[in-house]
Amino acid sequence: MKGVILLNGEPYKGEIDDTNALVFCADGAYNWAKGRVRIDENLGDFDSAAEIPFPRPAEIFPSEKNETDGEIALEKMLALAEEKGITRIELYGGGGGREDHFLGNLHLLYRACRAGMPCEMITDSALLSVHTGKFSLKNILGKTVSLLPFGGAAHIINNRGLFYPTDDLTLCYGSCRGISNVGVNENAEIDCDRGVLLVAINKEKDVKNHLFEAAEGDSADSAPV
Amino acid sequence: MKGVILLNGEPYKGEIDDTNALVFCADGAYNWAKGRVRIDENLGDFDSAAEIPFPRPAEIFPSEKNETDGEIALEKMLALAEEKGITRIELYGGGGGREDHFLGNLHLLYRACRAGMPCEMITDSALLSVHTGKFSLKNILGKTVSLLPFGGAAHIINNRGLFYPTDDLTLCYGSCRGISNVGVNENAEIDCDRGVLLVAINKEKDVKNHLFEAAEGDSADSAPV
Repeated sequence: MKGVILLNGEPYKGEIDDTNALVFCADGAYNWAKGRVRIDENLGDFDSAAEIPFPRPAEIFPSEKNETDGEIALEKMLALAEEKGITRIELYGGGGGREDHFLGNLHLLYRACRAGMPCEMITDSALLSVHTGKFSLKNILGKTVSLLPFGGAAHIINNRGLFYPTDDLTLCYGSCRGISNVGVNENAEIDCDRGVLLVAINKEKDVKNHLFEAAEGDSADSAPV
Repeated sequence: MKGVILLNGEPYKGEIDDTNALVFCADGAYNWAKGRVRIDENLGDFDSAAEIPFPRPAEIFPSEKNETDGEIALEKMLALAEEKGITRIELYGGGGGREDHFLGNLHLLYRACRAGMPCEMITDSALLSVHTGKFSLKNILGKTVSLLPFGGAAHIINNRGLFYPTDDLTLCYGSCRGISNVGVNENAEIDCDRGVLLVAINKEKDVKNHLFEAAEGDSADSAPV
């Protein structure tokens, strides 16, 4: 089954599939999520919630604590993963508005990656995930795909399925190289042998950008930005 | 004087002071900025601009390039800094919507920090900046102040002016520790002796959070999140 964590922040506008899922709601996410998706457990300090949520939280955490509510939810889900058979986690609603919370939520992706748990944040505009080693990206044809180093420089051996080659490319902090690559296949394979990559796939095809129609191998050593 | 760089993305809604400033506009930022602020130079590939901007760009960069338009603007401004007497740079409009561009824009803050140039991104909800060593934050009383490691773990020796102590605190990737500290003085002094800190100061005072009224020294070893 999959895990779903609903995060406070900009309400997620799309559909959330709760079939065969364990759904945790973190604090004020209840304000946008109630009635839209089944919630199995509410977690947090509820200093951002407008009402006591249902189901009633088993524990109200203190508002003065070291973890964010999203972090509490993720840690509990990781702890339950083996018992519940959770093989991947989706985070919803963590973008928008408060940039610091969005940035904190990216650390949840990193935490899950380090635990070997596939995890994706789904905002209204993008899918965000954190990876090491060899990995694949699905359903990217014609979409903007940005690769960013996360936590230090990242080295990419190569990719298959993106317009701009990334052969032996090191993405460093302080540079925007890696922003706005373009998917030219349905799926891409990326091989990153050093460091950690944050990947953002914009949801919409870029209708202004016809590069995805170009044949592979017909590209320059640069990315459109 | 100061440098101002207008970035594509969510339009900045507030006032922009162009007095004694060199103002660069990056590509599609022209769509939201024209008529609202004096623009000294337009830079970029203008694949996002709805019209040829005024003043007319001295050069149209190719859309297939390694740099973002914001990066081109920042590099040019850093190159001109000594000649023009630019001592700090403000970035406007870089948040919202496309998360990958927002994240790329954070690397502009890092790039400026590495060049020794004070630089701040001003979005509608927060002020973001990147720092190393000892630094101060102004006008933070009652505001949420989040400290995040950027590019690797960051070690804070201590702070003065924030509610939660950060003595000998290492902020690591994969943790949200450092999110949602609170300003208890007008200004804060932070001493970070290892790594780089990304600081987000939320613009509004947190009216739900009365911690800033607490006396210094009366705090627990944790942060409200």
